[in-house]
Amino acid sequence: MDLGALQAQITATFGARDRARGVDATFRRLVEEIGEVAKDLRGADRSALALELSDVVAWTVSVAALCGVDLDRAVARYAHGCPRCGVSPCRCPMDRPA
Amino acid sequence: MDLGALQAQITATFGARDRARGVDATFRRLVEEIGEVAKDLRGADRSALALELSDVVAWTVSVAALCGVDLDRAVARYAHGCPRCGVSPCRCPMDRPA
Repeated sequence: MDLGALQAQITATFGARDRARGVDATFRRLVEEIGEVAKDLRGADRSALALELSDVVAWTVSVAALCGVDLDRAVARYAHGCPRCGVSPCRCPMDRPA
Repeated sequence: MDLGALQAQITATFGARDRARGVDATFRRLVEEIGEVAKDLRGADRSALALELSDVVAWTVSVAALCGVDLDRAVARYAHGCPRCGVSPCRCPMDRPA
């Protein structure tokens, strides 16, 4: 699925609720989902983990949309390899940069 | 950008490092990026926020890949509206479900 299309769909589906909730409470929901991923990493149910990881993406999209960030454009820096060293596989001397 | 293509690119670029680091340390990097987003939400620099949000997506993809989760397939449940009530805009009686 295209990330731009996903952002448009999530904005259409949840944009009004996200705006009413506000950025801080929407970010809190993203953090909740991170917690759910942490919990599901303890178990063996990969379909439950997949669901929570998809929720992390969805709430990240909501935060981006609320802040006027085009997430598809932002993620494009990963399209051709490591954003720092510019190649794939990454050849950075340190672990993957922050 | 297509999420499946992004997962393939990130796996090619960082997969070996992610596997060597392991799931827990890779999840910790995802949490680090969540912290960076929290920090950038305080400021007005939307390009910095965009960068950190893209890193959240990238590390989420890395966790998914390490766990054998196809994130593109997982996110498809958001493709046609709310995964719970099935419509867009969401008509769930409560706030957007967890």
